Amino acid sequence: MNDIIPHWLTQQAFISSHVPAIEMENGINITFSELQQRSQQTAYQIAAYGIQEGAHVAILSKNDPRMIITIHALSYLGATVVLLNTRLTPAELQYQIDDANVSLLIYHDVFIDKVKQLQIENSLSFDEVKRLNIETGVALKEEIRLSDPFTIIYTSGTTGFPKGVIHTYGNHWWSAISSALNLGLSKADKWLAVLPFFHVGGLSIFLKSVIYGMPVYLVEKFNAAMVNEAIREKQVTIISVVTVMLQRLLDDLGVKRYPDTFRGMLLGGGPAPEVLLEQAKEKQVPVFQSYGMTETSSQIVTLSAKDALRKIGSSGKPLLSAQLKIHNKTTDGVGEIYVKGPMVTTGYYNNDTANANLFDKGWLKTGDLGHIDSEGFLYVVDRRNDLIISGGENVYPTEIEHVLEQIPDIREVAVVGRKDDTWGEVPVAYVVCESEALTEKCIIDYAHKHLAPYKVPKQILFINQLPRNASNKIMRHQLKAMLHTKR
Amino acid sequence: MNDIIPHWLTQQAFISSHVPAIEMENGINITFSELQQRSQQTAYQIAAYGIQEGAHVAILSKNDPRMIITIHALSYLGATVVLLNTRLTPAELQYQIDDANVSLLIYHDVFIDKVKQLQIENSLSFDEVKRLNIETGVALKEEIRLSDPFTIIYTSGTTGFPKGVIHTYGNHWWSAISSALNLGLSKADKWLAVLPFFHVGGLSIFLKSVIYGMPVYLVEKFNAAMVNEAIREKQVTIISVVTVMLQRLLDDLGVKRYPDTFRGMLLGGGPAPEVLLEQAKEKQVPVFQSYGMTETSSQIVTLSAKDALRKIGSSGKPLLSAQLKIHNKTTDGVGEIYVKGPMVTTGYYNNDTANANLFDKGWLKTGDLGHIDSEGFLYVVDRRNDLIISGGENVYPTEIEHVLEQIPDIREVAVVGRKDDTWGEVPVAYVVCESEALTEKCIIDYAHKHLAPYKVPKQILFINQLPRNASNKIMRHQLKAMLHTKR
Repeated sequence: MNDIIPHWLTQQAFISSHVPAIEMENGINITFSELQQRSQQTAYQIAAYGIQEGAHVAILSKNDPRMIITIHALSYLGATVVLLNTRLTPAELQYQIDDANVSLLIYHDVFIDKVKQLQIENSLSFDEVKRLNIETGVALKEEIRLSDPFTIIYTSGTTGFPKGVIHTYGNHWWSAISSALNLGLSKADKWLAVLPFFHVGGLSIFLKSVIYGMPVYLVEKFNAAMVNEAIREKQVTIISVVTVMLQRLLDDLGVKRYPDTFRGMLLGGGPAPEVLLEQAKEKQVPVFQSYGMTETSSQIVTLSAKDALRKIGSSGKPLLSAQLKIHNKTTDGVGEIYVKGPMVTTGYYNNDTANANLFDKGWLKTGDLGHIDSEGFLYVVDRRNDLIISGGENVYPTEIEHVLEQIPDIREVAVVGRKDDTWGEVPVAYVVCESEALTEKCIIDYAHKHLAPYKVPKQILFINQLPRNASNKIMRHQLKAMLHTKR
Repeated sequence: MNDIIPHWLTQQAFISSHVPAIEMENGINITFSELQQRSQQTAYQIAAYGIQEGAHVAILSKNDPRMIITIHALSYLGATVVLLNTRLTPAELQYQIDDANVSLLIYHDVFIDKVKQLQIENSLSFDEVKRLNIETGVALKEEIRLSDPFTIIYTSGTTGFPKGVIHTYGNHWWSAISSALNLGLSKADKWLAVLPFFHVGGLSIFLKSVIYGMPVYLVEKFNAAMVNEAIREKQVTIISVVTVMLQRLLDDLGVKRYPDTFRGMLLGGGPAPEVLLEQAKEKQVPVFQSYGMTETSSQIVTLSAKDALRKIGSSGKPLLSAQLKIHNKTTDGVGEIYVKGPMVTTGYYNNDTANANLFDKGWLKTGDLGHIDSEGFLYVVDRRNDLIISGGENVYPTEIEHVLEQIPDIREVAVVGRKDDTWGEVPVAYVVCESEALTEKCIIDYAHKHLAPYKVPKQILFINQLPRNASNKIMRHQLKAMLHTKR
């Protein structure tokens, strides 16, 4: 991890100058050489603004090439990039900005209203960055030390307070390399990027791009017809998706087929339902299911397309450089999933409490429950800390509960995931009220003010008291079971 | 470099159990699962013999699957592998065995006569290893720490004493990964291995095999017709060659063509002559020229096939994780070639003197002279320390001179490389004698007793005195020039 390599964008621009790094829907391409020039120019501009090595700079942006350019620019300065989820409320963003000691926020101009509600000394829109002076006096990084931090991405947790996962350059490097060893690597590859770039799954595509010398087809917003057209007409060979996208792509595809050059879909965010995999097989669409989390810099376990139907429900085998084991197995072989490897985070930013409990002798304690079959395939049976995965976004019940508990008339609340055909799961809230005046609408309106839309409960269920076990812990499984019988 | 990954063979056997790791000319395949089993069994046997972690074990073998199995076995024990060149004389072997503190020599049975002439306490033929007890009590390595030493391969130098280049697991890992980023990586890949496995270029193919999960087609001895048949009939996609092999393969190929699935030839050991590259182009054979040395764990600079004819004489651009620069440039841009990267050795074994002069601020001083053109392509103009590269083998003039100087009637001697259509270069010796009784045959016979065959001068040129400059240094360039006029 102390390895030093040349700056990957500079080196790739040197090796593959004229190869497109980013292709866009409007037909405009950015070559690696141009990407380097624009990133370095932006680095000089940000430096002129006063940002130095070691500074934490947050980015709030939708999928846009300037986001990628800004990320590379910050790496040229040795600054750490804090990637913000654009769906968060101002209060949620404020927490992450404060927690990560952000000294500058760079944002896409469409988020100006959100930014106005934030308390932060320095903020610049992409347009403002563009107008900054260029000071070429500062020395840009010519090398990357793999042990240096590169990005911080927040992930929620049991406590309700999000934690900033630190990724070193090495974490991202190993993730990209291990993925290439798994999927192979061809000069003809072109990866379609439509997942949000502020998530590690989206970001990783752009880092693969500079490490592999591979073009990325950048899509701002998911639209099944447009993505399918891009796959069919733009020589896209791989795409990263979550289940809901896979479903919509297959529905939209209809009787059409993808070209033979299309290598498949890398699927994150939980195993896909069998019916969807059958549908994919019928349409000859290879699907690579995977298991991973922000802490593992994206996928760490992958199911090959050829095993997809033989191992329904499995996430596959660990990548070459990763290890996997089940800790504290019960008689049925289920226990906590432990993972290890050079793509695993070194810890959370500025969070000794969480870090103290993150590793067990070098193994990351994922908190997820699972088992490994006789052939070594992983099955995730329950997500960590009652995690709900909704359309690829992580939703932690406790975070929602903490918000709803602030409503004066609510005595107690428990949030669980309800199965949903479109999103996989959606959060719903069981509420015990002090007063009958409180309506579902009131509660949901309140939630909308404090929570990102995907975290807002889709249903409020009033209940006289929450089921608790002998040690007074809420029995969420019972609440989930009640949900299923009610539907 | 402190990264820890699962043992690569164990992990590959887990991921790709039934994929062939080694395919042989006799039609027998060894799968990754079998390779693991046989390597682990051999590890238990070698452990039973008393070899422990940290021991240095030498291998003297021609290209044979048992050589590969033994190398993996030693890695399971955490022992360091010293790879011996089978063409060396007993005295040359003895030097390396002593210098490397070898505690056990494992050899192919065909070398029994050579081994009998060595002074070494412990030696075992492959057959003897096979008959050893299996003691499964010992704990085999489950993980690889990339900073640990794995192999030692000797390379000669100016002083005439060979130096043991240490390769860590990380050096080999980065070499394999950087090569994949350069050449791409396909599940259909199959690499033909015919270079000697005791050289880093041959060894690297087998390490790529376990890291990529790729079959290797193992060829014991080079024969153009048989290698061509393998490429044409056995789905070989890549082959590593030296110039003389490339020439013979193209000659043998005649009007036939390789299949479209054949991706090309990775060419080491100096740039190829233009006429050969033209011939390759005409026969649609992609050639990837490269520059590297034992100290860089094989290639570190590669010329893509598409640039081969545009950049005649160039070795190309550095691999993604490597850096290249010219030190102390003269006005024509020529200077010493410096390289840097995680595939570069940490130093020579037990050789403080050589190590003290090996690096300059983290850059490896190759000793070779070269320049870089405006597009960043490297041209090697002169090899380090008058190095002669003959059929891919390094030959150091000083080493030969030291041997010939031992002949009583020789007053002084200077060895230079003569261009050779078959071998690229061959060594010839200029000799100043005390007596006229000494014949060319006498000298060559003497050389044969003390030097590997490829180091024996192909011609002895008697001369009255050696040309020396003002500081009394032999002017080898003048000797080379004399050679050209004489031919």
